[in-house]
Order: sequence, then structure tokens, then C-alpha cells
Amino acid sequence: MADKQDDAEIRSKLLAVSTATLTTALFKRGLRNTFIQGARPLNPQKCKMAGPAFTLRYIPAREDLDTLAVFRDPRHPQRHAVETIPPGSVMVIDSRGDARAASAGGILATRMMVRGVAGLVTDGGLRDSPDIAAMDFPAFCRAPSAPTNLIHHHAIDIDVPIGCGDVPVYPGDWIVGDAEGVVVIPAGIVAEIADEAVEMTAFETYVEQQVAAGRSIIGLYPPDEAARAEYEAARAKAKDPS
Amino acid sequence: MADKQDDAEIRSKLLAVSTATLTTALFKRGLRNTFIQGARPLNPQKCKMAGPAFTLRYIPAREDLDTLAVFRDPRHPQRHAVETIPPGSVMVIDSRGDARAASAGGILATRMMVRGVAGLVTDGGLRDSPDIAAMDFPAFCRAPSAPTNLIHHHAIDIDVPIGCGDVPVYPGDWIVGDAEGVVVIPAGIVAEIADEAVEMTAFETYVEQQVAAGRSIIGLYPPDEAARAEYEAARAKAKDPS
Amino acid sequence: MADKQDDAEIRSKLLAVSTATLTTALFKRGLRNTFIQGARPLNPQKCKMAGPAFTLRYIPAREDLDTLAVFRDPRHPQRHAVETIPPGSVMVIDSRGDARAASAGGILATRMMVRGVAGLVTDGGLRDSPDIAAMDFPAFCRAPSAPTNLIHHHAIDIDVPIGCGDVPVYPGDWIVGDAEGVVVIPAGIVAEIADEAVEMTAFETYVEQQVAAGRSIIGLYPPDEAARAEYEAARAKAKDPS
Amino acid sequence: MADKQDDAEIRSKLLAVSTATLTTALFKRGLRNTFIQGARPLNPQKCKMAGPAFTLRYIPAREDLDTLAVFRDPRHPQRHAVETIPPGSVMVIDSRGDARAASAGGILATRMMVRGVAGLVTDGGLRDSPDIAAMDFPAFCRAPSAPTNLIHHHAIDIDVPIGCGDVPVYPGDWIVGDAEGVVVIPAGIVAEIADEAVEMTAFETYVEQQVAAGRSIIGLYPPDEAARAEYEAARAKAKDPS
Amino acid sequence: MADKQDDAEIRSKLLAVSTATLTTALFKRGLRNTFIQGARPLNPQKCKMAGPAFTLRYIPAREDLDTLAVFRDPRHPQRHAVETIPPGSVMVIDSRGDARAASAGGILATRMMVRGVAGLVTDGGLRDSPDIAAMDFPAFCRAPSAPTNLIHHHAIDIDVPIGCGDVPVYPGDWIVGDAEGVVVIPAGIVAEIADEAVEMTAFETYVEQQVAAGRSIIGLYPPDEAARAEYEAARAKAKDPS
Amino acid sequence: MADKQDDAEIRSKLLAVSTATLTTALFKRGLRNTFIQGARPLNPQKCKMAGPAFTLRYIPAREDLDTLAVFRDPRHPQRHAVETIPPGSVMVIDSRGDARAASAGGILATRMMVRGVAGLVTDGGLRDSPDIAAMDFPAFCRAPSAPTNLIHHHAIDIDVPIGCGDVPVYPGDWIVGDAEGVVVIPAGIVAEIADEAVEMTAFETYVEQQVAAGRSIIGLYPPDEAARAEYEAARAKAKDPS
Repeated sequence: MADKQDDAEIRSKLLAVSTATLTTALFKRGLRNTFIQGARPLNPQKCKMAGPAFTLRYIPAREDLDTLAVFRDPRHPQRHAVETIPPGSVMVIDSRGDARAASAGGILATRMMVRGVAGLVTDGGLRDSPDIAAMDFPAFCRAPSAPTNLIHHHAIDIDVPIGCGDVPVYPGDWIVGDAEGVVVIPAGIVAEIADEAVEMTAFETYVEQQVAAGRSIIGLYPPDEAARAEYEAARAKAKDPS
Repeated sequence: MADKQDDAEIRSKLLAVSTATLTTALFKRGLRNTFIQGARPLNPQKCKMAGPAFTLRYIPAREDLDTLAVFRDPRHPQRHAVETIPPGSVMVIDSRGDARAASAGGILATRMMVRGVAGLVTDGGLRDSPDIAAMDFPAFCRAPSAPTNLIHHHAIDIDVPIGCGDVPVYPGDWIVGDAEGVVVIPAGIVAEIADEAVEMTAFETYVEQQVAAGRSIIGLYPPDEAARAEYEAARAKAKDPS
Repeated sequence: MADKQDDAEIRSKLLAVSTATLTTALFKRGLRNTFIQGARPLNPQKCKMAGPAFTLRYIPAREDLDTLAVFRDPRHPQRHAVETIPPGSVMVIDSRGDARAASAGGILATRMMVRGVAGLVTDGGLRDSPDIAAMDFPAFCRAPSAPTNLIHHHAIDIDVPIGCGDVPVYPGDWIVGDAEGVVVIPAGIVAEIADEAVEMTAFETYVEQQVAAGRSIIGLYPPDEAARAEYEAARAKAKDPS
Repeated sequence: MADKQDDAEIRSKLLAVSTATLTTALFKRGLRNTFIQGARPLNPQKCKMAGPAFTLRYIPAREDLDTLAVFRDPRHPQRHAVETIPPGSVMVIDSRGDARAASAGGILATRMMVRGVAGLVTDGGLRDSPDIAAMDFPAFCRAPSAPTNLIHHHAIDIDVPIGCGDVPVYPGDWIVGDAEGVVVIPAGIVAEIADEAVEMTAFETYVEQQVAAGRSIIGLYPPDEAARAEYEAARAKAKDPS
Repeated sequence: MADKQDDAEIRSKLLAVSTATLTTALFKRGLRNTFIQGARPLNPQKCKMAGPAFTLRYIPAREDLDTLAVFRDPRHPQRHAVETIPPGSVMVIDSRGDARAASAGGILATRMMVRGVAGLVTDGGLRDSPDIAAMDFPAFCRAPSAPTNLIHHHAIDIDVPIGCGDVPVYPGDWIVGDAEGVVVIPAGIVAEIADEAVEMTAFETYVEQQVAAGRSIIGLYPPDEAARAEYEAARAKAKDPS
Repeated sequence: MADKQDDAEIRSKLLAVSTATLTTALFKRGLRNTFIQGARPLNPQKCKMAGPAFTLRYIPAREDLDTLAVFRDPRHPQRHAVETIPPGSVMVIDSRGDARAASAGGILATRMMVRGVAGLVTDGGLRDSPDIAAMDFPAFCRAPSAPTNLIHHHAIDIDVPIGCGDVPVYPGDWIVGDAEGVVVIPAGIVAEIADEAVEMTAFETYVEQQVAAGRSIIGLYPPDEAARAEYEAARAKAKDPS
């Protein structure tokens, strides 16, 4: 129960910060490779998402194994993944960066949306992309791609560690997306990263306002001691305007 | 006359289905490589198109041959192609996937639009792309690209088989585009593919509605016998609601 | 004083023509490689820009040198560049085509906008791209990219000749951007190129109107003697309708 | 026991044919994607190999997890794989086509050679490549690459289905290498493929000799009825020269 | 007859110079794009070649058209090309830079060698590459590649202008290869280029000797007046040592 | 004088270890990106080299600036660099990874060899590569490339920090090459890296011998306490066999 509560808090914080801020917080801890390369949102106006990763691994297709008949099997990993991913999680698909065929399409995206899934990320393609772009469901891919996944992909594993867009993704890592792209946060540090990112965001917003008003970035971003004190004072005042 | 009628019917059906559905219909017949890789619409809101392919082949430019003077020749293949492509056809250009220079620009696109051409596809670039994006003329390319085509391309042939985005295109093949991209349908099977895609679309629409309403995809997509019967009944009722 | 006036005139002309037209004017002088490859506007509706280049050169980062502490140095080349680039200039960054990390972000873009900088171009990435996309500040990059620049880039030089998107850029060259992309004009010929492009644009507009009205491009684009005379007459009349 | 015998026979046949012939035999059965893209032998004079696949899967490295300390764990998948791969098998590593760091190096290659492993294939890099090139051990990679695998790779799984060079590899599939590269044969058809390839090779050798002696390929390659009969007669005579 | 004589002389001169020297001679005439990108010799010790281009054009394969049965047609363009290319010519294949499948193999190479063909160039792959590497027949490709050409290529045209490795090749252009790669010389200037390259080679040899003996390149390469005079004197003496 | 002595010692040590070992020593200090990507030796049998970096920076060429006439200027950066690089140094050229034209050729390589330069590295191409391959001069490039550098490159700077093959190179950094490729060692740590690499090599040689003799890598590589003690004892005995 406590955990559920925590997840809701973490999600709330992560939805309030940008992927740019998160990559800097991760970089401070020595993690340099956390931004999924090439994943762009189909629906940039409605793509803010955060949730633990549930993964699906593809290998290249083989003509004799990957026919339309495979989908008749209710345990087919792609279909099974869509039906079993926990609500609130993000589906992350390792498509080996190959967008010549789709990783998933509109019907599966709809099913996941209805089931309460937080979003969908692939380093390959998505089909029915015009339909998905109109949905209220965050979906990220390398490119729209009409061909069915069987043409180049074979779903092989569910919820194992994968690579996606050159980034390692372990099941349970937190996945955050915005109009810039998708970042992966190791599960063990997500709470502290969320807290730190909220603090960083408050400061960056302050800086942005100061700079928009004409102030130089020198001594401000990053702040020297005076600027830091000035910011702390402004912040204290904002919290307690009395 | 009959043929014209057929073409209109085929076009009408193809405009009512998605490129995603068409690639699946083609995959059922063993055709795996039918989606032009990398061709994106400049005007996604007005890019629905269907028509037989009329092709233009480029080879790399040579500095002594490819000067602005070549366009003074009324038989220059690029200009000749634009003036002779039949209304209703789609111009497909083999630019060897090279978008460093444009394959065509706004004036030629306007000429084709006025002449009743159905659309324009290149695996290279298009220039005057902001103008073309505002036209009611489907245009697909790998990237906007300002440089004139002579810098990297030499128009050499009209209406010969070509490759475009790694897909073979024979003159007369049907080219269908939507906001997802462009698919190539061999001329000999276009009628049956169009019919089948219409049927598939009806079923997919039904599935999409069911899934949006909360139904699982297992047993539905693809349908087991019960789901198939249920769909047939719903469809019969829809056709004859009495 | 005269120079300032000239710059204003040149800017005004360059803002009235397209990058496509400019590349053709440059091609006439033997310059084939003037369009920055891969640079796309974040804010296509507000990306028209023209100004002399002010450059920033990056080399790959090294873990021991490129830590967040470097930004405390007021002479850090990236921060120094942002504070010293002359108003009216365009910041052009050589990021070696590497968009895995950002070249700059929202706060620096804001600072440059406030300082009157004409625009920002990189052949790498930009972070805080959703924020920048909402600003009235032309910004061009290969891709949105959340990671801070230190992860892959080390700012090393200000205002030296660089490559950007495979194009040479010398400080003072004129940089012109529109929704299609960015073109580089050698400083020594910018005045004549601006004049010629204005003339070319007038003719192209005439051609576009004629073609939209149904005229063939043959004999018109490029014009034969009759079409040329017709255009000159129409133009004379437009200037002096009496 | 019988199986071991079969394996030895299959291996013997596969070592007597080329990867080119094998890809054609596989193509006849509808398998088009069987040649590992980009894998080149380090030691082309001693790279002939055949054996069942034993696989190792890598995902991208993470700085906090992938330190040199991991190799102190005797169950580390890379080290464990090297010690447990059955003699006669081929180690196939999925490195996601990333050769920026090595997949393995000279000491592990030596250990596998000593253990009787048939060969090593990766779609990434190999380090100590000059040493491996001098060994009597078939080793195939995309490129020599000095950096230790931990810099970009994390060994995660042993003997699961993988992709390697864009080709699916299931544990037990037969892997055949020669100076041209590496082909993957599904386990279920390896016996018939081996037989057919031996037959094809006999015919191709005959054709090669005929062509070297001046005969046209028309009617010979592929053979018309007369050429087929002629070949069968020559072959019968060769088998029974009495 | 005279032409044949001329061809022999041209060939003799071109075989005595390097592709590096030829690209410089072509660059002096404004031709910058004459070196086929990515084409490497399979047999670097025996790859010197020169001859007029005979071309073969491939487009992407289509599964229903490109089956092994097509080779039964004696007019199949690939087979027909191999049988009809004139002795002394170089076969140049446009494979769209796609080396996933072969452009040709050992038997066709043997047939061409026997027929007196000067060499073989493709921007795709070659199969049976170990066999071809052992032949006395110049063969250039992007990579060894086992799969039969039908898997990705469809031979469509013979002796038409093509692109190969991003360079335009017109039938009759002269193709020269050495261990560095392959250069294309427009037919109309081959005689003068050959003469000039012979002169350049004589001077470069002189420079190489001087530099090897310890002389600075400044004033020598390129030569100032004194060095030019010195060279002319040395050359005159060499021709007439009396 | 002392420094020279040190340089000789460092060079001697670095020539006795492999680039693979050096990248691991650098990785232990947090330096992950030290191996120049894509640089291969033209003469693998004679490519062992070590020396401080002297750098040359190229930007893209511009047709009006980069004509053959530029080489008449004795201060042209490329020619000047070749004449002024200190003996014992390694010339490292930033060619932006572009091998479409050469970075240098045989005559300049000869001049550097005669002047006592330690070697040549570019992330672009080298022309006259067959000649250079026959010289006793280490030379590394991405690919042989016949076209003169002016076609795509403009030499702009000497001895400034550059990127080469995605690795930062500061003047004075030590550059070590072997048949595997090229590694960059920051100047400040080269002495300790050299010492450590010599120690590592001694141990790796021991491990290699043990493994070749049949020992498992588990507990040996890396060594557990017992193996470490055993190695130290063997080493002590080897140093003092009495």
C-alpha cells in the first residue's frame, strides 16, 4: 500500500519535470546514457508520461515461423504482453532500432490505453500512426511504419532486460517521456532523482524568468553564491509570502 | 471506358483504406517489401492519394552535363515527365535515397497539381517544401532540401522500372499514400487487394470499437470462430437493419 | 554607419527570399555545397532568420574535463559565446553532426533571444526543445536531445571557421533560415546574392501564378525569349501601372 | 550416440560447401535472411567452421553496473558462457551491431579454442584481434575494437534466441562460416540442407570447370535438359569409371 | 581499326597511372565526383584494370518475380550482360549500394574472365568472393556477400547510364581500377586525361624520389619555377642521356 | 633532456603493450572513449607506433577557396604541418570522418617518414594507399580514397584540440597504434598508464599461457587470491631464477 502511494508520488513528480532536467540529474550520478536515441512522440501535445518499464523483446523474423497464424496463439508474446502489462506501466519494446516494420499498431495501442497503461516506447516503428497520434496515449517511435511487425520482427520475451534506442532498460526502471523524448531512470534511484529534479526545475524556472527579464547567465546559471542566496530568499518568500 | 470505370472504383476503395492494412494484404501474398522507406508527407492533413505509378529515374549529376542550361531543353526528362504524366497518376522519383539536393520543387508540384496528377513521391528531397506543404497536393519525400536537383541528380529516364525507398516500382503499379507513408501495389493484383483491404478495414474498425469499449484482443484480433460469427452477424445487421 | 545600413538592407532582402532560391543563386557561381544538411527548425512558423555567422566549435567530451563544474567558469566558451555574440548575428555550432547530446538548451536560447541574436543553428541536438519551439526565436537542429552537452561535447573555440552539417562556415558568412532549412552565403558575395535572389523571387512568383492558372512550364520555366519579354512587360506595368 | 554420429556427418558436409551455396539452398525454402550482415573473418585462411549455435546476449552497459569488478563473479554470463559452451558448438554473440567496444578478446578466444569450440561470431567487435588472427580458431566480427566490452555491453543471457547481424539465431541452429562470412541454418532442416548443398557443389564445380574451359553459361547455369543429362552422365562416369 | 589502336594506347597509359593521379586530372577540369565510393578490390595484387564501361542496372527484387526460375531465360539481363559485354570492357553494376545480397558470383566472373572482359565493379556485394580473390580478374565490391542476387536485386537494364557508388557512369566511360579503388573517366576526355596523367606520374615519381632523399616539399610539390626547371632538365637528360 | 629521456622510456613501454590493454587501463580511470573509431592500418605488419599528437584540423571545402593553386602557398596548413611536426610525434587529422576524399597521400607520408615522424592517423581517407602500405611508416585511416583532399577538405588549423574518430585529441596527448587501431592517452597520465600497461601485459601474457595450456579462466582472469599469489611467485622466480 505504501509502495502504491510512493509510486503515485513519484509519478506525480516525474510528470512535473522535463526529460532534459532528468538527464542532468542522472549525469550527476555518473549515468551518461539514459536518453533513448531516436524515439519521437507521435502525439507531442499529449505525450507526457511516467511509469515503470514493462519490456518486450523482438528478434529478427524468420519466414517459416512468423506468419499471420501466430497471432491465433493467445500466448503469443506480443499479444500476451499487451494483456498482462500492469496498469500504470510503460511498454518498452526492443526492436533493435529497425523501423522497416512496425513494433505495434493502433488496436494494440487502444487496448493498452483502455487497460490503463501509461505509454508505449519502441526504437522501431509504429503503424496506424495517424490513429495513434489522435489518441490520448503517449506513444514514441523512431518512425511511422505501415508493415506488420511479422515482416521483420519476432516477439520472443516478456519483461526481461533489453536495450532500447541504445539505452539499457531493466524491468521496473522508470520511463519518463515528454515532447523531447524518453529517459530511463534506474529503479533504485528513482525516488531521489524525482526529488532532485523537482528542486532543479524550480531553480531553472527562476533562472528562465530572470534571463527572460534581461539578466546575464554569468553568475546565475550556474549560480554563484550571491545568486544562490538571492534564489533561496525568493523561494522562501514564495513559500511564505507573509 | 470499362477500364476507366475500374480505375475510379479501385481508387475509391484504396482511398478508403490505410497503408497499414494494404501492407498486410500484400504480406498475405508473400510480398514483404512494399512500403517505401523514409518517405514522409509534407502535408499530412492532405496527403491521401492513390493512382498508377509514372516514374522518373535519376542518376548522380556530373558537373559538365548538369548545368542550369539543361532546363532550356523542352525534352529534358524531368520537365517532360511533369508535362506528360497522365492525370490521376502518381509521379514516383528514384533519387537513390539522396536528399542532399531536391528531386523537384514548388513550381513543378503546382504544374502537376493543375494537370490532375494524383501525387508525388521521392526517396530524396523536395524544395520549396513550405509552399508544397500548403498545397492540396500529396507530396512525400525523405526530407525538405533546398538545393536544386542538378547539384546531385541527373534526370535520365521516364516511365521505366525503378527503386524508390528500397521498394521496386514498375510503371502502372498502384501507389497509395496516407499520413503514415506510401505503399506500392503490383498492377496485376490491385483490384483484389483493394477489395480485400476494404473487407479488412471493416473488420478492423469493428475490432477497434470493441477494444475501445474494453474488450480483450485475445480471441478477437485475430478472431476465433465465435468472434468471427459475432462480427458477421453485426455486419449483416448493419447492412440490413430491418 | 553605412555598413550597418547595408546590413539592414541585406537582411531585409534575405528575409524576403527562400533558401531554395538562394542555393540556386549560389550554384550559378559554382557553389554547390551551401545547404546545412539535417538542420530542421524547431518552430517552423517562426523560423525565418538572416544574419552574419558567429561560430562555436565543439570537440568530443572527455570525462575528466567535462563535468558540471566547468560552467562555473565565466570564460567557458559556450557561455562566453552566448554573452558575446553580437546582436543580429546567428550562432552556428559545429557539433560534428552528433545529436546524442544537446548543443544548447532553453535558457541559453532565451538569453540569446533577449540579447537580439538572430537565431541558432547546430548540426547536433537541442534540449528543452518544447520550450524553444514555443519561443519567437529561430532555432535549427538535427534532433531534439535531452542530455546536457557535456556528455558528448566540449566547447573549445569561438568564432573560428567550422563545418556545420557538412558545409563550411566562416565567421561573418551570412546564414539564412526558413522552414526548409539553413543556407550559408560567403560574406564577400552576400550583397549581390541578395539582389539576385530578390529578382529571381519576383520571376518565380510570376511563374508560380502562371502555372497555377494552367500554363505549361515548357518555355516558361526557364523562360524562352517570348516568355522573358512577356514577364518584363508585366513587371514594368506592375511598377508603373499608368 | 546416433545423434553424435549425425552431427559429425553434417559438420563434414557443411565444411565441404560454401556459405554462398548454403544461402541458395535456404532461399529455395523461402528463407531469405540467413547471412549475418557485416561479420568478417579475422583469419580468412583458417576460418572454415560449422557447428550448432550457443548464444550470448548483450544489452547496453550501465556505468554503475558494468565495472571491472563484475568479472570476479564466476557466474558472469560472458565468462560462464565461455566455460560451458559445448565443444563443437559455435559461440554467437548478439552485440546489437555495436563495434565501438569488443564483444570478447584473445584470452576468451584461446579458452574456447582449447575447449574445442568450433568458432566465434559477433556482430560487434573483437579485441586482441592481431592475436586472434594468428590463432587456428575461426573468429568473425564487424571490426577489430580495442575497448573492453564493459564500456558498451552488459552480458545478460546465455543460450536464448538472439539476433546477430540482422539474422535470427536460435540455440541449436547450425552456424557455418568461411572466408565470405557466416550463414545460419535452422536446426530442423540442417540435414537436408547439408545434403542438398553437397549436390549443388558438385554441379557448381562441374559448371566452373566447363566455364573456365570456355563454355557459355547459357543453357548450362542453370542447365537445360541437355546440359543436365550431360552432367549426370559425367558424374556417373566419375563415380564408376569402368 | 584506328579506334582499336587508340583504345589499346589509352588502356596502356591508364594502366601505368594511379587512380589518385586520375582523380586530380579530372578535378582540374571541374569533375569532383569520379571515385566510386566503397568499391574495394577482392584481389588487390591483381586488380589493375582499364576499359570502357558496360553497365547493368538492378532495382530491388520482388518476391513473385525474382525466383530461381528466371535464370532459365537466356535473355535474363544479368546472364545476357555477361555473355554480350565486349572483351576489353569493364562490367559496372548499379546495385544501389546494397551489399546484403550479391551482385554476381564466381561462375559469372569466370565467364567474363574467359571472354576477355577487363574487370567487374559493383557498389553491392560479390559472392564466392574467396574464389574470385584467387582469380586473375579484377573485381571490386563493397563487401563479400553470400546471398544470391535474387534475394534483393532484379536485373532490369543493360548498358544504360547508371549510378555506381554515388558516381554517374555512362556506357563507354572509361573505368580504371587499382588497389585503391575505381575511377570513372568521361569518354570524351579519356585520351587527354590519359596523356596528362602520364605526365603527372612522371613528375610525381621524380618528387617522390627527391622527398625520399630528404628534400622538403615546399617549393617542390607543387614546384616553383626553379624546381620546375630542374625537373625539366632532369627529364630531358633522362630522355637523351648523351 | 630529462624530458626527452622520459619520452623515450614512455615510447618504449607503449610500443610493448597493446591498444586493448591501454583502453582497459584508461577505463579504470573513468575514460571510456579513447579508441579512435574506424581507423584501420594500411600496413598492419608495420603499424606499431607511439608518440605525442600533433594535430591538423580540416573543415569542409568551398569550391572558390579550395583550388590546386592553394598548395603554392608555403604556409598552407597541410603542407606547413608536414614540414613542422616534430620528429617522434604522430600526425592526427580531423577529417570529420569523411573519407570521400583523401586527408593526405604518398608524397606527404614519405616526407613525414623521412623527417622522423612516428605515424599518421586520420578519420578520413588516404590516397596512394598502395604505396603507403608498402612503406615502413604507420598510417591509419577509415578507407583508401583516391580524390585529392581539396575536393572535400580545407586545412584550417595546426595543433589545436580536435576530434578524430569521435575521440577528443589534445596536442601532446599520446597516440598509440597497433594492428587493432589507435588509442589516445591524455598527456597528464601517460607515464602512469604506460607503467600500468606494462604490468598488465605481463599478467595477461601469463594468463594466455595458462589458458593455452588448458586452465579455466574462472579464478584466473581476473585472478582470485590464490591465482594472484601463484602469478606473483612465478614472476618473482622469472626475475630471479636462482
